[in-house]
Amino acid sequence: MSRTFEENLALYAKLAVTEGVALAPGQELLVFAELTSAPLARLIAREAYRQGAKNVEVLYTDPDLTLARYEDGSDEAVEYAPQWLIDGVANAHRENAARLGILSSDPALLSSVVPERVATQSKAQGAARRIISEIITGFEINWSLIGAASPAWASRVFPNLPTDEAERRLWDAIFLTSRIHEADPVAAWRTHSENLEARVTMLDEMKLDALHFRGPGTDLRVGLADGHVWAGGRGRARNGILCSPNIPTEEVFCMPHRDRVDGVVSSTMPLSLRGQIIDGIQVEFVNGAAVNVRAKQGEEAFAKLIATDESANRLGEVALVPHSSKVGQSGVLFLNTLYDENAASHIAFGASYGENLSGYDTMSPEERVAKGANDSIVHVDWMIGSGQVDVDGVLRDGSVVPLMRAGEWV
Amino acid sequence: MSRTFEENLALYAKLAVTEGVALAPGQELLVFAELTSAPLARLIAREAYRQGAKNVEVLYTDPDLTLARYEDGSDEAVEYAPQWLIDGVANAHRENAARLGILSSDPALLSSVVPERVATQSKAQGAARRIISEIITGFEINWSLIGAASPAWASRVFPNLPTDEAERRLWDAIFLTSRIHEADPVAAWRTHSENLEARVTMLDEMKLDALHFRGPGTDLRVGLADGHVWAGGRGRARNGILCSPNIPTEEVFCMPHRDRVDGVVSSTMPLSLRGQIIDGIQVEFVNGAAVNVRAKQGEEAFAKLIATDESANRLGEVALVPHSSKVGQSGVLFLNTLYDENAASHIAFGASYGENLSGYDTMSPEERVAKGANDSIVHVDWMIGSGQVDVDGVLRDGSVVPLMRAGEWV
Repeated sequence: MSRTFEENLALYAKLAVTEGVALAPGQELLVFAELTSAPLARLIAREAYRQGAKNVEVLYTDPDLTLARYEDGSDEAVEYAPQWLIDGVANAHRENAARLGILSSDPALLSSVVPERVATQSKAQGAARRIISEIITGFEINWSLIGAASPAWASRVFPNLPTDEAERRLWDAIFLTSRIHEADPVAAWRTHSENLEARVTMLDEMKLDALHFRGPGTDLRVGLADGHVWAGGRGRARNGILCSPNIPTEEVFCMPHRDRVDGVVSSTMPLSLRGQIIDGIQVEFVNGAAVNVRAKQGEEAFAKLIATDESANRLGEVALVPHSSKVGQSGVLFLNTLYDENAASHIAFGASYGENLSGYDTMSPEERVAKGANDSIVHVDWMIGSGQVDVDGVLRDGSVVPLMRAGEWV
Repeated sequence: MSRTFEENLALYAKLAVTEGVALAPGQELLVFAELTSAPLARLIAREAYRQGAKNVEVLYTDPDLTLARYEDGSDEAVEYAPQWLIDGVANAHRENAARLGILSSDPALLSSVVPERVATQSKAQGAARRIISEIITGFEINWSLIGAASPAWASRVFPNLPTDEAERRLWDAIFLTSRIHEADPVAAWRTHSENLEARVTMLDEMKLDALHFRGPGTDLRVGLADGHVWAGGRGRARNGILCSPNIPTEEVFCMPHRDRVDGVVSSTMPLSLRGQIIDGIQVEFVNGAAVNVRAKQGEEAFAKLIATDESANRLGEVALVPHSSKVGQSGVLFLNTLYDENAASHIAFGASYGENLSGYDTMSPEERVAKGANDSIVHVDWMIGSGQVDVDGVLRDGSVVPLMRAGEWV
């Protein structure tokens, strides 16, 4: 399949609108994009208008303005988040606006900023944006995240290549993992989604009590929430629309029980967190809480993250991904969780997803917690799977079913 | 004064923050800028943070998205304006956020769009943005408008030059008219403002009843509002901050009486209105209302404009500008009212400014109208002065005082 870059980009825009957010005719679409992603954002806007969008509002973000706050702003500026803008966006979602995020940030943008300032600003943003997090984790509206190569991101992924060559290579990896290289990308994406959804059905039917991860530096038992529901592929938002929240996605994921995670676990890939690289994480869990946290790189930032609020040191997600997924096959370390979490099984500190709990919508917050749900303003995935990690399913009666061996589905 | 472009741009950013919005320490600043103005917006953000801004929020606009709505959007899309975003911005201003607009739009962006669609969208935007217009015309907060050259704008101004040369020439004209070429631009701007303010005091002391414009195709008597107040140079917003709402500005302006404008008037320069060029305007006024409107180019768009609401066909502003102003001297037809209105005396259809009426803040809407104020969702300036136009002041007793001869102050 030999297409020009422009043809691939147009197909990618079409996939994002058709399968990503699955925009309904007459619906409003909010797009969040860095300035460098303007060419893609424009294609998406035109595709959305052709599909009947009532409005496409692109809210451009500028990484240099993020840096300006840290480098030239007062303490007051670092403690501030624009609630008026966040509330406006929340109001749009309440009126059923869909949401598409285009990720292209420099994974190490904030590497030279004092960690305290980053933590302070992140906490202020997290608190102000809680209203948005709830809309997303509660799956109130159809939403999707996709990626777009930027010079800054590409140069971190391919540090030895000239910038334009690095950008081309990163776009190739994005197109490959998003099935844009297929003859009919939209159809290929739908088939892939259906395969993931079949895996979800199978896991739900097993009615597992826990997952058990074993590998180098890892012996972790993750109890699953009472009434947990596996998810993966597309999901149906509460506004009735079946969308693909992540493109790409290779995971099936579930809700851990916030109090029933025990053992030790080691990360298998670095991650970019709030503009800083974190690597070589080792965590010990007791009764669901992380009690001992180390990292070879970025330990301070990681420790601050899981101290953000009372429940940020407990798990909100556990996900299984075969090592041979399209992302794993690409051989690229993207330094962006949207991609890297699809190269390996992973867990996430922080908020759990409502869709992973049966009857979530009709429960009180206390009932949700009693079932094992976790409530936090953060949600940070990190990779714990590899070609050396085995995963067993543990049934209610204590018997064990092998799920993955050497990183692949049994 | 030989400075690099970067040095001039940094001085321009400093002027915008220090004299334009005159940002107070701890104040929030909203910046509206097209994508192509990102380098200037970033310098402004850093300058504002250094001066103690609590937050700088740059809301980037993208002309291609404006076009996308018209070219690919449904009728519903053309009738839509994002109230949730406008309300968010209004809430920021209610919490005292200052406002800086960076103008750089293509004067003929919408020249190939069906005029009905432009009128429909403009009306929807105008109605939704009324809340913002009231904050601005009521001078609730400190605000300012400046310009920035963009490739699209520069190519319209200098159609025979290569784009990069056109952009350099336009930047030069912007820097010249904004006093950036002076040794100390901030001090030069302040001196210039004080000169305008002295002219305002002189005109207020004359207690004029009307202005009388005479020239080729023009014999117009503009009655002034009862209790009118001249303005020009800086203005003090109701939050107490003395700012420069326009950079550049060469005008002194006043409130016409909405019912006391009579005669005929011809435009002396083309203008860009909603992305279309309007030229050769001729209007007849009777008792304040435009009763006969013609234009050699863009007549339909102009006619639609003054039919936007009940009072859009009455005047909200009259302004006197010497033909030899810095903008007039530059010899550049900017096709942008921020500049061109400062090359010639002008009038504006639509909303009047509260600062031009004594006691405005304490009056009911009905009392304001009785004094001669005009309320509309539009405000569109057009130029009626030139080196061939004379202006007289008419006193209460009917006696006449010459104010301008052949376009210059007497």
